[in-house]
Amino acid sequence: MTESFTFAVAKTDGLARTGEIRMPRGIVRTPAFMPVGTAGTVKAMYPDQVKASGADIVLGNTYHLMLRPGAERVASLGGLNRFMNWPYPILTDSGGFQVMSLAQLRKLDETGVTFQSHIDGSTHLLTPERAIEIQGLLGADIQMQLDECVKLPASEAAVEKAMRLSLRWAERCRIAFGEQPGRALFGIVQGGTVERLRAESARELVALDFKGYAIGGLAVGEPQGEMLAVIETVAPRLPDGKPRYLMGVGTPDDIVEAVRRGIDMFDCVLPTRAGRHGSAYTRFGRLNLKNAKHADDPEPIDAESKFAPASTYSKAYLHHLVRSNEILGMMLLTGINLAYYQELMAGLRKAILDGRLEDFVGETKEGWAKGARDGGDEHREIPADHAD
Amino acid sequence: MTESFTFAVAKTDGLARTGEIRMPRGIVRTPAFMPVGTAGTVKAMYPDQVKASGADIVLGNTYHLMLRPGAERVASLGGLNRFMNWPYPILTDSGGFQVMSLAQLRKLDETGVTFQSHIDGSTHLLTPERAIEIQGLLGADIQMQLDECVKLPASEAAVEKAMRLSLRWAERCRIAFGEQPGRALFGIVQGGTVERLRAESARELVALDFKGYAIGGLAVGEPQGEMLAVIETVAPRLPDGKPRYLMGVGTPDDIVEAVRRGIDMFDCVLPTRAGRHGSAYTRFGRLNLKNAKHADDPEPIDAESKFAPASTYSKAYLHHLVRSNEILGMMLLTGINLAYYQELMAGLRKAILDGRLEDFVGETKEGWAKGARDGGDEHREIPADHAD
Repeated sequence: MTESFTFAVAKTDGLARTGEIRMPRGIVRTPAFMPVGTAGTVKAMYPDQVKASGADIVLGNTYHLMLRPGAERVASLGGLNRFMNWPYPILTDSGGFQVMSLAQLRKLDETGVTFQSHIDGSTHLLTPERAIEIQGLLGADIQMQLDECVKLPASEAAVEKAMRLSLRWAERCRIAFGEQPGRALFGIVQGGTVERLRAESARELVALDFKGYAIGGLAVGEPQGEMLAVIETVAPRLPDGKPRYLMGVGTPDDIVEAVRRGIDMFDCVLPTRAGRHGSAYTRFGRLNLKNAKHADDPEPIDAESKFAPASTYSKAYLHHLVRSNEILGMMLLTGINLAYYQELMAGLRKAILDGRLEDFVGETKEGWAKGARDGGDEHREIPADHAD
Repeated sequence: MTESFTFAVAKTDGLARTGEIRMPRGIVRTPAFMPVGTAGTVKAMYPDQVKASGADIVLGNTYHLMLRPGAERVASLGGLNRFMNWPYPILTDSGGFQVMSLAQLRKLDETGVTFQSHIDGSTHLLTPERAIEIQGLLGADIQMQLDECVKLPASEAAVEKAMRLSLRWAERCRIAFGEQPGRALFGIVQGGTVERLRAESARELVALDFKGYAIGGLAVGEPQGEMLAVIETVAPRLPDGKPRYLMGVGTPDDIVEAVRRGIDMFDCVLPTRAGRHGSAYTRFGRLNLKNAKHADDPEPIDAESKFAPASTYSKAYLHHLVRSNEILGMMLLTGINLAYYQELMAGLRKAILDGRLEDFVGETKEGWAKGARDGGDEHREIPADHAD
């Protein structure tokens, strides 16, 4: 296993790329989907199931982990990988997004952001330096700069101000992180839906020479078209040889469209959160297992799935579990959804490698459309916050 | 695999016995602990984990299943075993106990009991014949007669009246069940804590020639001594060649004491329910993982356990999951508890086979006492109802 953090693109197809990120804890095959493990657990999943589903890396939320169990405690217990029994790579966010969406009594200034915990009301200060310190204590393999996410819609002036502050924080994070051979710090491109601001943010971050770049401030309720336009603005301005991560995205269709535009990494609460609320993502679109029409259906979710729960349990049983609010229903549907997401990512990677991405996208969308024609329920849905 | 239902005692040690119940769907090694799978799922467990923990049979609750998803629906989907992906034996209760504890507007007479569903208020009539019909539709391998469980304390007259009604219902169930070679119907001894009534109930049921006998009306809050006294009254009056099932019991200590008195089968919600509420049953007694003293403890629950979650995850991590109300905490602790219960049963079976039950009991209790000395939390706790 490598001692350093490296990224190599093996093949491109149009703007899409497939490759590998190599880190001491493992290889991340890109395009990659990272299940969200907010509080040190991908909800309702055993870590070995997460790995078996095809995930190479999971995401942890700094905001949640710093409040409970606490970064220093996790460090004293050997780091987050050991704490949660996930010996593979972990990416942590900087905490900024959840501070904005969850914490109370925020006070933001040049220094950082002071806030009260939503758990016990205790007061915390998150600065760029502390965000890096916390992520280091957690032992995250990929760490994110602290940024300010403004809620959209916002005035162009507000977006610009937040983007500039995020740039100054990016530089402070870059200095605080220093050089850590086996780990990476990513910068986050901000700038809302304003092309000029996104371009400036990308240019300035590239100058700071991060190991990877994220696109932030999206998946907050905007139409898919706006999100894709931002990707089209930003992706070409990022270095080819570094991974590009679209934060908090998205539906299977969002992922497919973003991969076509050159994105390498994704995280989203949708497969796990939908699984806990009775919905399944499948080759035939999204199914709502709560729906009474499934009550007597002896057929499985997807008879051809390699993931046993998807091909074994009847929709009638899943319907019963969901209606009865049984934990096993959440376990099975979360597993089914993560397996489908990873199946989709594997399909995208292979299609890019084989130079037939557009065909694969067409076939994939035809499957979803078939499900919709058969009474499925594929639609766009954006989660309220990016932790699960 | 056998086509008929048989029971054979392989070895006795004092009053304790070890043996096997053979049924077309599998062998149940006795003394056996049956995890409770109330609504067609052992909560927070995959069926293959339940099997891997050492369970040969699970229990389903007729009351819950008849209301949701409905016995006829389960039958049309191939029976409960297939519905819940558990191809091994299932025992169902008759529904009587939960009708008494959960349903509203009960009206009980000679015919049966009319009640309203606690889920949707719909009205249902449960007669001895319907109880057998429902259990047949579910496809249960071991079925229970309908009985009336009076809440203790009750007057001797009330206990006697309920016991006599239960006897008349036993006969009606026996007739309704008829002869089903691969399946068994068990009679249920009632009579509260009144020796004369328990003796009469046992004698009359034996005359009806059931395939097995249960002791009902216990584990409803009485002191352990009263429970054991009833077992001492009833067990010797039951035929040696038929299995004896103590319904709804109990703590590890209850089980050990009942095995010493000749009981072969148990079911209880404790390991699963406690697991969902942050408690672990271990060789060193009961632990409350919610307790702040576990917050920084890097040690696992039981380093020598053959069950990976018990020997892998730190108490600190389990504490964090429990405090954060994470589903994985419920999954891990339920698994840990069921694994410990099955380890205890395997230990009891082996000790009886080796003719060293009393030594095993002594060693086991010493382990629990050691845990208590080290700050553990072993205590008697009776769940409010017998479904999970």
